[in-house]
This record gives sequence, C-alpha cells and structure tokens, in this order.
Amino acid sequence: MTQTISINNSQKLLIEPLSMPSRLLLGPGPSNAHPAVLQAINTPPVGHLDPAFFAVMDEIQSLLRYVWQTENSLTIAMSGTGTSAMEATIANVTEPGDVVLVGVIGYFGNRLVDMAGRYGADVRTITKSWGQVFSLDELRTALETHRPAILALVHAETSTGARQPLEGVGELCREFGCLLLVDTVTSLGGVPIFLDEWGVDLAYSCSQKGLSCPPGASPFTMSSRAWEKLQKRRTKVANFYLDMTLLSKYWGSDRIYHHTAPINMYYALREALRLLAEEGIENSWQRHQQNVEYLWQQLEDLGLTLHVEKEYRLPTLTTVRIPDGIDGKAIARQLLLEYGIEIGGGLGDLAGKVWRIGLMGFNSRKENVDRLVAALRQVLPK
Amino acid sequence: MTQTISINNSQKLLIEPLSMPSRLLLGPGPSNAHPAVLQAINTPPVGHLDPAFFAVMDEIQSLLRYVWQTENSLTIAMSGTGTSAMEATIANVTEPGDVVLVGVIGYFGNRLVDMAGRYGADVRTITKSWGQVFSLDELRTALETHRPAILALVHAETSTGARQPLEGVGELCREFGCLLLVDTVTSLGGVPIFLDEWGVDLAYSCSQKGLSCPPGASPFTMSSRAWEKLQKRRTKVANFYLDMTLLSKYWGSDRIYHHTAPINMYYALREALRLLAEEGIENSWQRHQQNVEYLWQQLEDLGLTLHVEKEYRLPTLTTVRIPDGIDGKAIARQLLLEYGIEIGGGLGDLAGKVWRIGLMGFNSRKENVDRLVAALRQVLPK
Repeated sequence: MTQTISINNSQKLLIEPLSMPSRLLLGPGPSNAHPAVLQAINTPPVGHLDPAFFAVMDEIQSLLRYVWQTENSLTIAMSGTGTSAMEATIANVTEPGDVVLVGVIGYFGNRLVDMAGRYGADVRTITKSWGQVFSLDELRTALETHRPAILALVHAETSTGARQPLEGVGELCREFGCLLLVDTVTSLGGVPIFLDEWGVDLAYSCSQKGLSCPPGASPFTMSSRAWEKLQKRRTKVANFYLDMTLLSKYWGSDRIYHHTAPINMYYALREALRLLAEEGIENSWQRHQQNVEYLWQQLEDLGLTLHVEKEYRLPTLTTVRIPDGIDGKAIARQLLLEYGIEIGGGLGDLAGKVWRIGLMGFNSRKENVDRLVAALRQVLPK
Repeated sequence: MTQTISINNSQKLLIEPLSMPSRLLLGPGPSNAHPAVLQAINTPPVGHLDPAFFAVMDEIQSLLRYVWQTENSLTIAMSGTGTSAMEATIANVTEPGDVVLVGVIGYFGNRLVDMAGRYGADVRTITKSWGQVFSLDELRTALETHRPAILALVHAETSTGARQPLEGVGELCREFGCLLLVDTVTSLGGVPIFLDEWGVDLAYSCSQKGLSCPPGASPFTMSSRAWEKLQKRRTKVANFYLDMTLLSKYWGSDRIYHHTAPINMYYALREALRLLAEEGIENSWQRHQQNVEYLWQQLEDLGLTLHVEKEYRLPTLTTVRIPDGIDGKAIARQLLLEYGIEIGGGLGDLAGKVWRIGLMGFNSRKENVDRLVAALRQVLPK
C-alpha cells in the first residue's frame, strides 16, 4: 500500500459511546419501540440471501397482509422510512401524463401532490380545510370532473389528526376505472383498516407508529389491478431503488438480488408484527380507541379544545388547539426537556395553532396518558 | 368504533420470537457488525427533531468527512441501504439530456448505467473485462470523445474485487469541465480514499462493509461543484426521498422536517464511525491490507487462483476462481450450512466463475481467515 497523502484529522472526533436521554414519545411519530422489538433489532445480522433471512421476509409478508387485512401477494417492507414507501406507490404506477387526483386535507396530501408531479403526472387536487374529510359525494363529483388514472387519499392525516372514511371509495374508483392509493402511515396497527374490503389498490405505511418498531422499514402493498398497470408501462419506473418489478423478484420465489436489505430493521419489524398478531389486530384497534377516548376526556377536563370533530378523530393522533396567548413551542420544549415527554407542534396550515399528541402502538397505554396530563397540569398556566 | 367487517385471519401467523443462526459473514456484504454497534442499535429511540438527535447527526457528518477524507459540507447518511445513496448521487445532478459517461468494469457500473437512464441521461459507457480497471489515458480519451457532464466510476467493484485507481482523475474531470462521481461502497473504511485530494464531486457508500454496522443508513457526500449543478437545475429532482435540497435543510442548521430518519440505524452508524476514529482511519486501512495479504497467501497455498492482478486487488474483497469441475454454489452452500460461514458467488459475467470473499470492517481479522481456510480445506476436493 503506497500512501503519500497525509491524513486530514480536522473532522476526526474522539467521542464517548452513545448516551441518549430517555423520552416518552407522544408526538406524531416516532413512537417508543416495544422492548421486545429492541431486543430483536440487535440480533447479529445474517446475509440478505441467507435462507434463514428469506424465512423472515416471508413471515413479514404474511403478517403485513394480516395487519392490513389484505391478500395482496405483493405486500413487502421497503428499505427506508415511510416516505420511501409513499414514493414507491407513486413511482410504480405513475407514468408521465397520467391524471392523478389527490385529496388534500393536510400536509401529507400536499406531499403526494409534490411527488406525483416529480413523476410527470398531470396532478389535480380537491381540498378541504385542515381537520376535515371528504364525503363520498364530494369524491364522486371530483372523479366525474377529473377522470383520473389514480385517486390518492390520506386515511390518517398525520398533520391534522383526521380519519378519512374509506367505505365505498373503492367501488367508486372501480366505477370510474381508476386506482385507489391510500396513505395509512398513522393508521396501520391502530385504526381499523380493511384494504381488500375497501378496494384499496396501493397503500403504504411506516414502522414507528402503530407497529411499535423503530423507523427504517416501511410497509408497501399493491393489488393485482395496480400490478397490471405497472406491467403495462411504456417507460421504466423512474426510480431504481423502489422499482417493484425488480423488488418482486427478490421478495418472490426468484430471490434475485436487488439491493442489500436493512437486515436488523427487518428483524425488528418481524417482532413488532409478531406481537401485534399475538395481541390480535382487532384488540389493538380497540385498545387504541379506549386509550384515546380517555385522553380526550382528560384534555377536555383541562379546558383544552380538540381540533377535529369527534366522528373523524384518529385513535392514534389527536390535535389539540393551543389556547390563545400561550406559546405552544415553549410548552412543548418544556415537556421535552423537563419531563422527558415529546409532543408535536402543528405543520403547514396548523403551524402554531395545535399540538399533536400521539398514542400509538406500544405507547397507547393509560399510564402514558396520566403521565402526560400530569405534566400538562404543571406547565399550562392556571 | 363501528366494525361490521369480520377479521380475516388467514395470514395471521402465531410464531416464536426471532431466532437466527450464527454466521461469519465473509461474502461481499453485509459483514458482521461490531458488537458495540449492536449494543448502540438497541438504544431506545428519541424523536427525529429532538436536539439530542441533532447532536448525533452532527457527529455522523463530521466522522463521515473524516473517513472519506473530505471537507464537503453536505456529507450525510441517507435513510436507506447503499443503493439508495447511489441513486441519490445520480438523481440530484442528472437532468434529462445530460451526457453521463459510466466506466463499466462490473455489475455496479451497469447499475449506474441503468439508474442514469431512468433519470433521462444520455448515457455513454466505456468498458473493460470484469476484473480490470481503466488507465488515466483511457479515461482521457473517453472524456475527449463523449464530453460528459458527469463521469461515473466505481472505486471498488464489488462484483470483481478490482480497485480503480483515482489519482489524477479529478484533474482530468476539471480539464473537461465534468463532475466526478465515485462508488465507494466496498472501499469506505477499508481502502485508502482521499476524496478531496482526488477531486471527487459525488460519492456514496454503505454501512455494512468497511464500517462494521448493519445495513440501512448510507453515506453520501457532494462537493460545492456538484451542489452548484444541483442549484442550477431547470427541473425538480425527479425523486422526493433523495432530494438533496430538501435533505440539506434537515441536516443543516434549518432543521426542517423532510422525513423521519431511521433513528436506531443512525445510533449504530455513529458508534461504527466512532470506533473507526478511535482506531484511526490509516490504521484500519493498514489492518485490511495486512489481513487480506495473509488471506491471499493462504488461498494460493490451497492451490487456488485469484482473479484480479495483485496491484489492483481490493483489500476488502477478493475474487477467487472456482477450479474446473467444482460446483461453486454447492461449496458455498456447504460452508454456510455446515460451517456457518457465508462467502459470495459471482455476479453477471463472473457468475459461476468466482467466489467472492470479503474481509471487511470488524471481520478483517486473522482468525477469520484461519477459520475460513480450515473450512475450505475440508470442503474442497483433495
């Protein structure tokens, strides 16, 4: 080895091993991981083409189908966080010129608009004020007007805490010959979802909310209708990392290498899904609903106002209006630094107007509500 | 909660907690993670906007600059495996119609060709047979012929085990007014790299090889010259997840949310980089070189032939010709299942012709060579 260049040590840090503060994560995500999931994540990795790893992948696929209530063959975990799975839905079925109709009821609807545009879609939008949801009639009118190839909706709008009902939307989409794409980032695991019953063709989620896993491996699923549109493309998917034709050959029986999977993240995700199956998905949904109703009552007892109408509130994420004259950021900072509790602030139209409180996955427990409410009692002006 | 649809339990698996076999990973990657890195990865996550997490991100940035020997401000970890960081380099600086010249000396050169095409580049290639590398004269002639906007080379071709010398290439690229993009997936941490001295404008790597970390967070860096090309784009980057203008606002002082980072992967990467700084990057390079020379000697003593000319062999990855009449796949399978040792087979032009043996990061140790050679002695025909 010849080496004539001298080493630059200006960026060399000599630091101590990691030491992180303890936080109760009650914001919009990430949520705390289940202790058993953290135990699984530090299993020494095997290779991404090891038969023992293929077995883990198969288990993940089955369990993802279960928690999403779908029989979609192509149901996998993407090797990135939720935004990568979101982009995977758009990238695979959007061809330049396709009309993509996005229902925008918050920040993540706008993100879908941005993404679809990057893939050359003719993007149309329908909007509601942040915190509201669309009716079936409104969606029908929009489909009549725009005749899209894809209708994209956000089931659980993380920026507003609103739950978009999806019953009947799949039938509408079949009537108008379009695919139904749904964001379930803040609903999977904590909010009733019946992808097949609802006729959803593409969905994505994340690991760090209702699944009680750290972020870094993200659920993706597509129906046979969506797969057909992918197979009929005239152009390659404009994204290599997220190309589902290639990925299906790694997750399917061919086992053809595409990229090195994030092995330990999949270990964690498998354990998270295993725990959810052990609990029973319907029991998890019920637990989230019970604990959030307790939270709502406690917050209202504190004199606070909830932003979303009760019927459409998410059991996983609650938006609370910041009372007049209160510095919302300062309160959140105080909760974090003095009480070790993270809650979120508002995004976009709701910036400065709401706090976002998550009770998701492992964190949806009564004692966490009590701990938060006790802290709020201390930090809010009397 | 009204719920009238019955639960489909057909995909519900009731399985045991994870139990994986123990493997010594001596293939082309992943490599075994350092035990201290596996300890860091199961630290309970904090939020991606927590000040304590921003400190971790800052440390990662500095330490990545150190191991790459660069002062590039935009030096970060991508939230995906190496292929996502590879795609990030292409996606951010390629505009439709740009001439991208790729030096193809193996599988990953072809992957760059595929990716650049997806982003609308006018892709040109120069090729060598798998196992060889380009001379400066050959690169000069190619630059004269193609006048590209970007020259893309693979420093460490994981499919062949060849090391492409880069001394003088950056100067050539400045002479011809193009950017230099380099794949360092199998070199970072284990092979001398001097990005700034060599005038490299864009580079990417992975976490699971020379850095001794599990896969899932991937180093990316770009020079101010590359940043200028990005800022002059006429079109948005055709990829949201990898958009460096947005990512720079999260990794920089603005701290604007872009996507939820894979928190625990960053914990692991920080520890991996910390250990490398503690060892000293030059000592790590030397350790890799010493151990691989010991491996080469042992393999030749077994009567095996190494595929790449000694001068251009990677210290991290060695390709060994499969002797005539031997079923390479069967040998690799026997090593895995009977000895718990993973080695790799050939890819593309070298499929069925070579084994690939990695000694990377934590795994570059004499005792691992001894264990592998002892096993090979058993399984190879006398």
